[in-house]
Amino acid sequence: MNSQPDQLERVVREIADEMAQRTDRGEVATYIPELANVDPGAFGLAVIDAEGNVAVGGDADMPFSIQSISKVFTLTLALGLVGDNLWRRVGREPSGTAFNSIVQLERENGIPRNPFINAGAIAVTDVILSGHQPREALGEILRFMRFVADDPSIKIDEAVAASEQRTGFRNIALANYMKAFGVLQNPVDFTLGVYFHHCAIAMSCRQLAMAARFLVHNGRNPSTGLLVVQPERARRINAIMLTCGHYDGSGEFAYRVGLPGKSGVGGGILAIAPGKASIAVWSPGLDASGNSRLGRIALEALTKRMGWSVFGE
Amino acid sequence: MNSQPDQLERVVREIADEMAQRTDRGEVATYIPELANVDPGAFGLAVIDAEGNVAVGGDADMPFSIQSISKVFTLTLALGLVGDNLWRRVGREPSGTAFNSIVQLERENGIPRNPFINAGAIAVTDVILSGHQPREALGEILRFMRFVADDPSIKIDEAVAASEQRTGFRNIALANYMKAFGVLQNPVDFTLGVYFHHCAIAMSCRQLAMAARFLVHNGRNPSTGLLVVQPERARRINAIMLTCGHYDGSGEFAYRVGLPGKSGVGGGILAIAPGKASIAVWSPGLDASGNSRLGRIALEALTKRMGWSVFGE
Amino acid sequence: MNSQPDQLERVVREIADEMAQRTDRGEVATYIPELANVDPGAFGLAVIDAEGNVAVGGDADMPFSIQSISKVFTLTLALGLVGDNLWRRVGREPSGTAFNSIVQLERENGIPRNPFINAGAIAVTDVILSGHQPREALGEILRFMRFVADDPSIKIDEAVAASEQRTGFRNIALANYMKAFGVLQNPVDFTLGVYFHHCAIAMSCRQLAMAARFLVHNGRNPSTGLLVVQPERARRINAIMLTCGHYDGSGEFAYRVGLPGKSGVGGGILAIAPGKASIAVWSPGLDASGNSRLGRIALEALTKRMGWSVFGE
Amino acid sequence: MNSQPDQLERVVREIADEMAQRTDRGEVATYIPELANVDPGAFGLAVIDAEGNVAVGGDADMPFSIQSISKVFTLTLALGLVGDNLWRRVGREPSGTAFNSIVQLERENGIPRNPFINAGAIAVTDVILSGHQPREALGEILRFMRFVADDPSIKIDEAVAASEQRTGFRNIALANYMKAFGVLQNPVDFTLGVYFHHCAIAMSCRQLAMAARFLVHNGRNPSTGLLVVQPERARRINAIMLTCGHYDGSGEFAYRVGLPGKSGVGGGILAIAPGKASIAVWSPGLDASGNSRLGRIALEALTKRMGWSVFGE
Repeated sequence: MNSQPDQLERVVREIADEMAQRTDRGEVATYIPELANVDPGAFGLAVIDAEGNVAVGGDADMPFSIQSISKVFTLTLALGLVGDNLWRRVGREPSGTAFNSIVQLERENGIPRNPFINAGAIAVTDVILSGHQPREALGEILRFMRFVADDPSIKIDEAVAASEQRTGFRNIALANYMKAFGVLQNPVDFTLGVYFHHCAIAMSCRQLAMAARFLVHNGRNPSTGLLVVQPERARRINAIMLTCGHYDGSGEFAYRVGLPGKSGVGGGILAIAPGKASIAVWSPGLDASGNSRLGRIALEALTKRMGWSVFGE
Repeated sequence: MNSQPDQLERVVREIADEMAQRTDRGEVATYIPELANVDPGAFGLAVIDAEGNVAVGGDADMPFSIQSISKVFTLTLALGLVGDNLWRRVGREPSGTAFNSIVQLERENGIPRNPFINAGAIAVTDVILSGHQPREALGEILRFMRFVADDPSIKIDEAVAASEQRTGFRNIALANYMKAFGVLQNPVDFTLGVYFHHCAIAMSCRQLAMAARFLVHNGRNPSTGLLVVQPERARRINAIMLTCGHYDGSGEFAYRVGLPGKSGVGGGILAIAPGKASIAVWSPGLDASGNSRLGRIALEALTKRMGWSVFGE
Repeated sequence: MNSQPDQLERVVREIADEMAQRTDRGEVATYIPELANVDPGAFGLAVIDAEGNVAVGGDADMPFSIQSISKVFTLTLALGLVGDNLWRRVGREPSGTAFNSIVQLERENGIPRNPFINAGAIAVTDVILSGHQPREALGEILRFMRFVADDPSIKIDEAVAASEQRTGFRNIALANYMKAFGVLQNPVDFTLGVYFHHCAIAMSCRQLAMAARFLVHNGRNPSTGLLVVQPERARRINAIMLTCGHYDGSGEFAYRVGLPGKSGVGGGILAIAPGKASIAVWSPGLDASGNSRLGRIALEALTKRMGWSVFGE
Repeated sequence: MNSQPDQLERVVREIADEMAQRTDRGEVATYIPELANVDPGAFGLAVIDAEGNVAVGGDADMPFSIQSISKVFTLTLALGLVGDNLWRRVGREPSGTAFNSIVQLERENGIPRNPFINAGAIAVTDVILSGHQPREALGEILRFMRFVADDPSIKIDEAVAASEQRTGFRNIALANYMKAFGVLQNPVDFTLGVYFHHCAIAMSCRQLAMAARFLVHNGRNPSTGLLVVQPERARRINAIMLTCGHYDGSGEFAYRVGLPGKSGVGGGILAIAPGKASIAVWSPGLDASGNSRLGRIALEALTKRMGWSVFGE
C-alpha cells in the first residue's frame, strides 16, 4: 500500500529523463588531464531511501572518479582514529574562498579552514597516515570504502592518480605550505601520495549512495545494524557537508538544494537527507564554482519533489 | 496523553536551571556603549513547538536589544518587496570573515557576501527604504515585526539607536564604501538611520519565538493560517541562517547545534527547527565570534535532548 | 659661459614639443565630477635648477587641481607640528595596493601604511587639525603653501572641494574606518572637510616647482636661506616620495624616472632631483595606476637627458 | 692631498668600534638550521669608494651566507640573458608583504611582485635555468659572481644549501604555486635546486663590495672598464633595490639609510651610493622584518657621516 517507493522511482526516472535532454551541461574539468577524457553527456542518479529501497536512473552504475567526495570518508575515518583531536589540525568553518586557495592558510598559521577544502583534506590524510607507510594508509582507506559500501570491487584508478601526481602543483604547494607551519607531520610526498590516490577512487552512483547510508541513519549501517561512527559524529559530518561541502558555492547549494552534500571535480555529488535518503548523482560538466552543474539541478528537483529539504517540506 | 509538551517544558526548565549556575558567561559587548549596561547574569529561553505549545525559562519575558536578529525579518520583508532581484545587491555565501569586515567588499565590487553580515543587512535596508523617507521605512519594519509576533507593544529602544548612531563608525564606513560602488541607492544617512533603528528593536525571547513561527511552518503563520512568505522562500531563509547566521562562527553553530539560527550582539539567538519549533534564547555574554556564549550552549543542549538537529535525531 | 641653463631650457622646450604631438594621453579622471571638465590636451612643465634658473614649457602657468600632491606639503607641516610622533598614526612603507584601498587598514588596526595613500593623508590632516576649527587648519595649510611658493595668490578651488565632498564616499569610508580604530581624533566631518579642501588647491606647474624648492636644498628655501624643515626631514620626505609617491605604480616610477615624486589625480606630478632641481609637470590623462601618463613620460625623458636620476647618471 | 680616503677610513673604523659595543643585536635566523650556528657577535663592514679606495672594519674578510643578496646578481644575469622580457615573468613593485608571502601570488595569477621577494627570485632563477641542467646554470651564476668580484675563490656552502633544501617548505610551496600558474618553465626541483645553491654562496663583506662596483659606475667595472650591464639597467637595478630590497622594511630602509640596498637573512646588506661607493655590511642578528639590525644602523651612520644619501646631503 505504501506508495512512496513507487513515487521515488517515478521521480528519479523523470529527473533522469529531464537531465538527458538538457544541453547546458557546464565544462568538464581539464586540470587533471586524465579526467578530461570522460563523456560530457553522462548522467547518473541513485537514491536509497530509509527503508532500503533503491531507485536509479541514467548511468547510475558507471564508475567515475569520486575526487573530493572521498573527503567525507577520510574525515569519518580520521574522526574514528583520533576523535576530536582532529580539530587541532583543521577548522570547521566555511572558507569564503575557492577550493584550492592558499591565502587563508597564510592568514591562519597554516591551519586549513575545514576538512573539505583541499588543504583541509590533505591535513586529514596526514592524520590517517600518521607514521605508517603510504601503502598501508591507502589500504585502510580503501578497505573502509569497501566496508561501508558493502562492495569489495571498489578500486583506485591508477591513471587518474598518476595524472594528478604529475600535475597537481597547487596541491603540492598547499601541502608544503602546511608543512612549513608544522601542520603536516609525515613526509610531504607520503601524504600527497595517499591524498592523490584516495581522490582517484572510482565508484558508481549506486556504490556511493550505498557507502553513505550511515550518514542517513545517525552513524549506523542499516543492513548490519553496526555503528560506523557515533550518532553525534554522523550529525556533525552532515553539518560540515552543509556549510562547507561545495567550496565557495556552499551557500548556493544549501539555498537551492537544502541538504548536506559534497561535490567532486569528477562531476559527482553525494547528498544526505538525514533519516530519509542517501543520494548520489553524477554529471561531468561543472559550474563556475567547480560543482556538477546538472548534478546540482537534479538534486534541487529531487528534494523539491520529495519534500526532503532539511529547511522545511 | 501526549507527553511531548511535558517533555519540552521539563527540558526548558532544566536548561534554564543549568544556565543559571554557570559562571563562564563570556563578555558583554561594549562597542555600543548603551548595550554595556545590561545585566550579565540574565538568561532567557522561549520555545514554541509545532502545535503552538509555549515553554519558557528564566528571563523569557525581559526585552533585550535584538540587534542583528532583526536582519532575519528585514531579509523576509525585502524578499517580499523585490523578490529575487534582491540577489543583485547581496550574495548568499558564507563570508569566512568577521561580521564587520570590509575586506570582502573591496575584493567583490562592494557586493556584500550575504544578508546577515553588517554590510549585507545595510544593503537589504537600502532596498526596503527604496526612495521613501526613513520614518516610513522604519514604520513598515516595525509594523511587520508586530504583525508576525502578533504583539503591538514591540518598540524601538531609542537610546540604543542613538548610541549606535554616535559610535557606529565601522558601519558608517561599510555603508559609504558600498555607496562608492553604487550598491546603495539612498542617501547613506537615511539608510544607516533605518538600519541603526531596526537593530535597536527591543523584544523578549517569547516575542521573538512568536515572531519567527512562520519559518517553522513553511512561511505560514500557524495562528492565522496566512502566508507570510512563499514556502520556498521560508526554506531558503532558513538555509541562509544555517550557513551565514553566526558570522565567522556559523560552521561551529551548525556543527554543535544543527539548526538554522541568527545571533545578535545583544546576546540573543533565534533558532528554527523546521516543522518542529521556534526558539529564542538570550544571555548577554558573548564568545570570541560575537555570539551569545550561554545561548549557544543552551541551544546545543536543547536540540540534543529534543532530537531536533536537522542533521539527524 | 655656463651652458647648463641653456641646455635645461632646450631640453624642457623639446619635451614640451614632443608631448604636444602625442595622442596616447590616458583617461582624464572622472570620479571627481568637477575634474572631468579639464582640457585633456593640456600639458605643462616647469623646472627650477639648483641655481634658481627657471625653465618652462607648454601650459606651465595654467592652474590645475593639485589633489594628492598636497600630501607632500601636509606631511611637511605635520612633521613640523608633532615631529616623529607622527609615525604613531601612520606608517612609511609602500602599500602594495591602490590609492584608496581599505584592505590594508583592516589588517593593520586602522594605521595607514604611509602618508601618501588617501587614508594616510587623512590621518596626517587629522594631526594638523588637532582640536582646531577646520577653517583655521585650512588657513594654516594655505598660508604654508603660499609661503613656500612665495606666492600669495594661491587659492582653493571651492567647486572641486564641493564636488569631492558630495561624492567622495570611499574617502568617507576610509576616515570612518580609521575613526573606529581611534586613529582619527577629530570629528570625521572636520577632518574630511580640511582634507577635501587642501586637495582642491589649484596651482600651476611654476608655482608647484617653486613651492618644493626646499626639498632640493636639504630643507632650506634657497631664496630666503630659511629652513623650512630640518635637513634630515627633507631627505626623509624625499625617501617616502620615492617609495610611496605613486600608489601601486611607485616601483614603476622609481624604475623609469629615478626621482622622488608625488602624483595627483588632477594630472600633476611633482618631482625632486636632490641638490639639482625642483620639477612640476601636468597633463590630465591618467594611466591605470592613476598617475599622469604624459607626465611620467616627460619626467623620464627629462631625467635621462639631464642625467638627474638618483640611481646613476 | 685629497682627505676623503682618510675621512672614509676614519668613519668606517668609528662605526665598526661603535657596533662592537652594542648589545641590541637582534635574533639570528634559525629557520635555516645551518645558519643558526653563526657567531651572533660578528660584525663586518667594507666600503669601496668611486676612486677604488677600500676601507674595512671588523670581520670584513669573514665569509658569510649571502642568501637573498644573491638576488641582485641573478637579476643582473637574467636581464643580460633575456632583457626586458624578464618583466613578463616578474613585476617590479614593492609587495607590501613579508618576504615569503604567498597571498600576493594568488591575487595576481602567480606573477611575483618583484625580483627580490623569494617568489620573484625563484622566477628569475627559472629564467636563468632555461632548459639547462641545474649544474650548468649554477656554474654560470658562480662564474658571474667570481667575475664581478674579480675573485675566483668564491664558493657555495654546500651544508647551507642542503639544510635549506631539507627544510625550505615555504619556498617549495611558492615554486609549485607559480608552476601551477605556468610561471615556472623548468621542473620545480631543478629551479629550486639552483635557487637554494645560489642563496648559499659564501662571501665576505670585502668580496661583496667588490662584486657590486658595477652598480656604482653605471654598469661598468671600474677596474677593467668593461660594461657588466647597460647603464640604464644598472640604474634600474638600483631603483628596484631601493623600493623592494628589504621586503616589508623597504620603506624604513629608504627613510633611514637613503641608499639602494639588498639584505639577506644571513645578516648581510649590500648598499650602493651611485657614483660614490659600494658598501657591504654584515651582522647576523635580524630585526622583525628579517633585515640585519646592526647592519642597518651602521649604514644609517655611514651615509649620514659621508653625506651619501641619494635624497640630499
